[in-house]
Amino acid sequence: MTRNLPTSSARIEEDISALAAITEPDRPYTRRAFTPMFLKGRNWLAQRFQAAGLTTHIDAAGNLIGSRKGRKPGLGTIMLGSHTDTVPDGGRYDGIAGVSAALEVARALENQGIALDHNLEIVDFLAEEVSIFGVSCVGSRGISGTRPDEWLSRESAGLALADAIAEVGGNAAAQRTRSDIAAFLELHIEQGPVLESEELDVGVVTAIAGITRIEIVVEGRADHAGTTPMGSRKDALSAAAWIALAVERFATDLAAGEYHFAATVGEFRVEPNAANVVPSRVTMLIDVRAERRADMEHFLAELREGVAGIASQTGVTVPEPRVLSDNMPTPCDADVLTALDNACDANGARHCRMASGAGHDTAWMARITKAAMIFVPCVEGRSHAPEESASAEDIALGAAVLLDAVQRLDKDLQETA
Amino acid sequence: MTRNLPTSSARIEEDISALAAITEPDRPYTRRAFTPMFLKGRNWLAQRFQAAGLTTHIDAAGNLIGSRKGRKPGLGTIMLGSHTDTVPDGGRYDGIAGVSAALEVARALENQGIALDHNLEIVDFLAEEVSIFGVSCVGSRGISGTRPDEWLSRESAGLALADAIAEVGGNAAAQRTRSDIAAFLELHIEQGPVLESEELDVGVVTAIAGITRIEIVVEGRADHAGTTPMGSRKDALSAAAWIALAVERFATDLAAGEYHFAATVGEFRVEPNAANVVPSRVTMLIDVRAERRADMEHFLAELREGVAGIASQTGVTVPEPRVLSDNMPTPCDADVLTALDNACDANGARHCRMASGAGHDTAWMARITKAAMIFVPCVEGRSHAPEESASAEDIALGAAVLLDAVQRLDKDLQETA
Repeated sequence: MTRNLPTSSARIEEDISALAAITEPDRPYTRRAFTPMFLKGRNWLAQRFQAAGLTTHIDAAGNLIGSRKGRKPGLGTIMLGSHTDTVPDGGRYDGIAGVSAALEVARALENQGIALDHNLEIVDFLAEEVSIFGVSCVGSRGISGTRPDEWLSRESAGLALADAIAEVGGNAAAQRTRSDIAAFLELHIEQGPVLESEELDVGVVTAIAGITRIEIVVEGRADHAGTTPMGSRKDALSAAAWIALAVERFATDLAAGEYHFAATVGEFRVEPNAANVVPSRVTMLIDVRAERRADMEHFLAELREGVAGIASQTGVTVPEPRVLSDNMPTPCDADVLTALDNACDANGARHCRMASGAGHDTAWMARITKAAMIFVPCVEGRSHAPEESASAEDIALGAAVLLDAVQRLDKDLQETA
Repeated sequence: MTRNLPTSSARIEEDISALAAITEPDRPYTRRAFTPMFLKGRNWLAQRFQAAGLTTHIDAAGNLIGSRKGRKPGLGTIMLGSHTDTVPDGGRYDGIAGVSAALEVARALENQGIALDHNLEIVDFLAEEVSIFGVSCVGSRGISGTRPDEWLSRESAGLALADAIAEVGGNAAAQRTRSDIAAFLELHIEQGPVLESEELDVGVVTAIAGITRIEIVVEGRADHAGTTPMGSRKDALSAAAWIALAVERFATDLAAGEYHFAATVGEFRVEPNAANVVPSRVTMLIDVRAERRADMEHFLAELREGVAGIASQTGVTVPEPRVLSDNMPTPCDADVLTALDNACDANGARHCRMASGAGHDTAWMARITKAAMIFVPCVEGRSHAPEESASAEDIALGAAVLLDAVQRLDKDLQETA
């Protein structure tokens, strides 16, 4: 469909192609936070921000910010953005599409001579992906007051995170939690197959799923594979196979409901992993995502019971599943969701409401402001891979939805300010 | 039970302790074939052979042989032995018990002044375990004419196997298949739990199981663990879990019969093995042991059918299981088995007949002579580990059974020679 949009897919294509060209050679698309390649990308982006009429600076948390003063600065700031860092061998669009779409909103406002009452900020958050420091969302957690102090002393290659933030132009010690942000909006590729398969343009994200990571260790006994009778074994792999299938069954049952739920055994390590030895130990890492906390708690209870039953039936030992990390779901702001639904309708964007199974900077921004996000389709749901693909037209339509929503929020958020 | 045996557990204990002391420091018990430590063990052993009145030499295949001439050398040779090389971090008894028991037979004959009609040879086979060259049973395959010529050019650390055989004193080019061996006998620890749990002294081994190794590759699709709905996945780990459980079920059914059967998924590798990615590929290695070839073929047919069904039900792709290696079962010689049964009865050894699930040099010697072996108990069936344990008294009783059987065969094999 060709639409007459106020946003330009050509400019978005230019942004994305230019950043894609700034990658580690022979390893598309790799621009990890804190690397020289990342700083090169940021320098290019700052100039691009400036060309759109934005004033740029690096804030204390290390985020690149492009600002445009509003007519009533006392109303605070509407912030839009995402991140430009990538995972190793990552894609062209994850984060980058959202920064480009946010910048395109600023360009469209500038082109059309539209003045907002609120200040506008376009943000490239620092280190949304897991960086060399082993943590993620460093920039959005910084300005939302949720970055643990102990992170600052984490080291990688002899450098502390606090020093790495300083190297990109931040100042962790001078960090203050932002209290002036009236709303935050983020566009992101879906990283899943739903919009593409249902032929929709935009997903209006109702919540960012909680993520819980659970480790299960199955302890069997290493025996000679040739000489140990089948009935005399404590095969850790067999018991772990039953557990993996139970995880899938519990998750499939919960996902059949109305709310997003997924559980995945992503890591699975067998010891001693030798052809002629009955496996003695399997370590499994389960990644669980739930839109509703109640579903997560239901899953955890089912898992504990299921694992205990499998252990007693197979004769292996399985200590209580260990919760390695446990983040609550984050609902998006109802008023911003309404503005986004209306903006979709006004721009002819076929849309649905959906939860995000992946984590995003929006989840942290929601701690300090009215926040929400939209998804645009990506090919086969692929992300974090060189094949990741989305169309500039779809991103431009998403940017038009953001542009419309920003103008609605600029009006709506006057009464409440 | 204290028995009045013609064999000495004290001498056997001395042999085993002395060899155990010759190990890589801080890594008991490691004396891999072709290493300096292995040669040190052999030098000690050669002196021990000589002290028992044996004449020693290294044959062209690299085996250490201690010989005692018979009264009628034309009858050929009765050979006894096993191996002294170990796996890395291996045990004190695997192979070593058999060499010590064979040597003890020679010592007992010498002490009692018993002359045999046949020549007697005590053998320490070269490289029974998988060595740095990635192959096993190098010495027994050498003299049985079953060592593939292409093995000789295999390299490890810049050295060809042919050169490594020369370094231990052999001469691969001068190799001839032995045709003078009238019978071969080997004692070995069971490496399984049956004798210990049934309180038996000796297992008379009816056959050495065939070993077939099968590789299965499950190809799913890497998807984002948070965003990909449960119903839209091609999870290679789930399908592989179903396959592992099918392997266990098929094998348990076959093992319920009268003949030894075991199947084990020993190696299991998941890709990309990342917490937040649905597994895209699992590579499984299945080790299958069967006393009867018919059982192996039945298993392979069931496996192919089972895997195809799991692939079609889960939506993953599983190419036809690939047979990496396939060795036939080796029945032991009926006459030698009878001699061993009678020798057990004569020495008050509680015994049963059983198959060997593990491979042994005997399987290769059976190609060129009347061969059989006996098992002695080991603690909890443990082997290929530092905890491996067997008692010198049990080994001495096994040696007494060998001594008795050798004398029976020395008489019995006159008519047929």
